[in-house]
Amino acid sequence: MKTMIITSSKSITLKEFLALPETKPAKEYINGKIIQKPMPKGKHSTIQTELSTAINLTLKSQKIARAFSELRCTFGDRSIVPDITILQWNKIPRDDNGEIADSFYLAPDWVIEILSPEQSQTKVVKNILSCLDNGTQMGWLIDPNDKCVFVYFSQHKPLLFEAETDILPVPDFANSFHLTIGKLFAFLLE
Amino acid sequence: MKTMIITSSKSITLKEFLALPETKPAKEYINGKIIQKPMPKGKHSTIQTELSTAINLTLKSQKIARAFSELRCTFGDRSIVPDITILQWNKIPRDDNGEIADSFYLAPDWVIEILSPEQSQTKVVKNILSCLDNGTQMGWLIDPNDKCVFVYFSQHKPLLFEAETDILPVPDFANSFHLTIGKLFAFLLE
Repeated sequence: MKTMIITSSKSITLKEFLALPETKPAKEYINGKIIQKPMPKGKHSTIQTELSTAINLTLKSQKIARAFSELRCTFGDRSIVPDITILQWNKIPRDDNGEIADSFYLAPDWVIEILSPEQSQTKVVKNILSCLDNGTQMGWLIDPNDKCVFVYFSQHKPLLFEAETDILPVPDFANSFHLTIGKLFAFLLE
Repeated sequence: MKTMIITSSKSITLKEFLALPETKPAKEYINGKIIQKPMPKGKHSTIQTELSTAINLTLKSQKIARAFSELRCTFGDRSIVPDITILQWNKIPRDDNGEIADSFYLAPDWVIEILSPEQSQTKVVKNILSCLDNGTQMGWLIDPNDKCVFVYFSQHKPLLFEAETDILPVPDFANSFHLTIGKLFAFLLE
């Protein structure tokens, strides 16, 4: 249940961290510390894959927004890798030739985290709150074990969704995307 | 990390649950399920004891409010036992002879939960949100391992406090009580 913090004898700057090679699972840089994400297991991987697909089926096809799995987002003094980052279409960084850029120096518009059994929920909630402080409109925290979702908002208090028929709230830009709790966790039964 | 749910072959009503003998650690009744609280360990017990004492030193002595450790609070469809329940003085149930009553059918005014290493943070956040939905003004979620406190409000989004000099927010009625993050976790070094 402890977050794995990779200690080093000397502290490292954000710039030095970003120059390091990427690893699997990804490392995150938070308040000067390097933190290793847990290795995703079956439920985590299934929800991450299916939910990204479902979001893109609605929002990407309409060029409204796009969901990215394991995308490194660097903003403020941290560099994090949310399980799913959703960005509005016109905010996606692109190279001059129109290709998706490699580096994303911004916070997600909508961030989705999926708990792993050994993961520190504290670290995940901290990441969601730091996103909300940096312009993210909404954060979902999915607990596959408990079959519930906490939705964190930029303004008001978080809400809990756990009834099968509960429709999950989405940011305004994503209001053509509809998902119930029942359908979300039914991904695990497919 | 899994919440211990005590399953029984037949479901049980809140009234039936309340008729059962108390156990240690306490059991909670949430959405028709009986959930066993984890056995408190050293850090949990220390913070629970010292923080209750500190709050009472200020608020009880002025008859403003009173902190209770491991008090069963029954409201809505649940019966929970927060680590620390703080109630304003005039809301504390008393018998006709003025003694503190045995049963508390109300939500805390201010609720404090302290994470245990094996505890499901999901279950604790659910309890805090259900308190806020039932009139609780503020909820603290203390992570002794991570040395941080999430403060949940009845209206706006949660805030994270982790710097030693951060002064923790309190409900209006408790504004004579002051505590920094540094002093809170210094209880563990005494």
